Amino acid sequence: MSISYFEGQFVPTSQCRLPITDLVIQRGVGVFDSIRLYGRRAFALNEHMKRLEDSARIAGIACDGIVETLAEAIRTGARRDDCPDGGDCIAKAYITGGDTNDHGKFPEPRAFVIFEPGPPSDKDEHRLGIALQPTTEGRPYPLVKSINYLVGLMQTAGMDDMSECLYCPDGEITETLRSSFFLCREGKIFTAPVGKVLGGVTRNIVVELARENNFKIEERCPLLSELSTADEAFVTGSWKEVTPVVRIGETRIGRGKPGPVAAHLHKLFRASMDRWLDK
Amino acid sequence: MSISYFEGQFVPTSQCRLPITDLVIQRGVGVFDSIRLYGRRAFALNEHMKRLEDSARIAGIACDGIVETLAEAIRTGARRDDCPDGGDCIAKAYITGGDTNDHGKFPEPRAFVIFEPGPPSDKDEHRLGIALQPTTEGRPYPLVKSINYLVGLMQTAGMDDMSECLYCPDGEITETLRSSFFLCREGKIFTAPVGKVLGGVTRNIVVELARENNFKIEERCPLLSELSTADEAFVTGSWKEVTPVVRIGETRIGRGKPGPVAAHLHKLFRASMDRWLDK
Repeated sequence: MSISYFEGQFVPTSQCRLPITDLVIQRGVGVFDSIRLYGRRAFALNEHMKRLEDSARIAGIACDGIVETLAEAIRTGARRDDCPDGGDCIAKAYITGGDTNDHGKFPEPRAFVIFEPGPPSDKDEHRLGIALQPTTEGRPYPLVKSINYLVGLMQTAGMDDMSECLYCPDGEITETLRSSFFLCREGKIFTAPVGKVLGGVTRNIVVELARENNFKIEERCPLLSELSTADEAFVTGSWKEVTPVVRIGETRIGRGKPGPVAAHLHKLFRASMDRWLDK
Repeated sequence: MSISYFEGQFVPTSQCRLPITDLVIQRGVGVFDSIRLYGRRAFALNEHMKRLEDSARIAGIACDGIVETLAEAIRTGARRDDCPDGGDCIAKAYITGGDTNDHGKFPEPRAFVIFEPGPPSDKDEHRLGIALQPTTEGRPYPLVKSINYLVGLMQTAGMDDMSECLYCPDGEITETLRSSFFLCREGKIFTAPVGKVLGGVTRNIVVELARENNFKIEERCPLLSELSTADEAFVTGSWKEVTPVVRIGETRIGRGKPGPVAAHLHKLFRASMDRWLDK
């Protein structure tokens, strides 16, 4: 069961409908952010809401006061009896373009939050690692977390063994469709700088934790040409937390098994999460 | 007033709502095509429906039988009393991803058609020409006419004087957000090849008419470096037909006025349109 905060009320998601005049349907004008709830507490809520507001602003969607309303709805929804999985779930906050396009400005947005169970596979993914499908495509305009995922989804269509696509424009590895990417090589961790990639909330926290714990981390794009000599790789995301990557396309990463850096950072993440949990 | 063919019926567009579980809202999984109606007759309907079906198929959206249903709805809607502007309007046919994502395949799509008045400015645009805003962005995946227009819309946000953006990745001019682009220089007409750009229906018809009438037309991308020595430029599209371009960014094209090639081709287009009108 999924519930939503929609038009100012909490209702079953199956009852929520958006007018087809909304530009999110007609022209993909919409931004969103996914917030993980742990035991009815939102993780890094302020960071997600800041990014959502930035996304809307850069996309030209008016959002005065909206983000505050959505944050409060997430807090309230997390405490409800009908919040999925007892409040261990995902809250997806959307701001859509609404019906009016005023020269690329969208003054009458709509907004809602969907509370839904996370995908079921995370335990296996942490234990076994995942595979990624490389593509020469890049994420369009990574400063905005927009809903425009179609081209990314197309890259792994029909591939049951691939978790998601890995954007590698011009031989540079940027990020995956839904996560931030890290490569470990010669004692260092490499990850693409924000701007080349979406400012991943979990990414930023993992970078912070890694630095606090004396890992050597460099913010520059890993290269496709470095994959064959890498020791390990992993991705970060709200649901994935820190998930090892064991294969990219046909290339086995390291020994083809989850590596110690990812395991160490995941343990640190889990042990430190209270710092970012909503009070 | 706008009407729609929605869930098998003709209803006012303002009454039509899509579940927020549809992936067109959550992840931009949707394709569309805009068909112009002239006096209750659809223009190049088969060509548009073929492109819509190709878009859906490449995007992984199941569409068996859907396109035929939409084509019939467009013919029926065009004859209705409540069809906008007496049947001189635009029919926008959408196929959305529906609620199910099966590894990048979308087996349960939704589909609808919106009949609405065209934008009001076309007479002025033909008389005075339009300005385009160049951008280094490119259209993501031009083989699919998807709804993902946000990055393109952002390029002209707040610019009242710019009709739309002109994609110019790596110095090559491909197309605009909504139209196909043509540059006239040294007695030839240049336009980007399909594949680098969306297979524009009006584009293809104008190329055919130009060849029949002994214009020299070459299918290769015009270059940004050629703009300053160009004689004229124009765009083609369902509503724009053949519309002159007089300025690109700060660069005046030719004498900064609509040119004779665009005028000639527009006249040919108008004189020949019966060949592509639905019987």
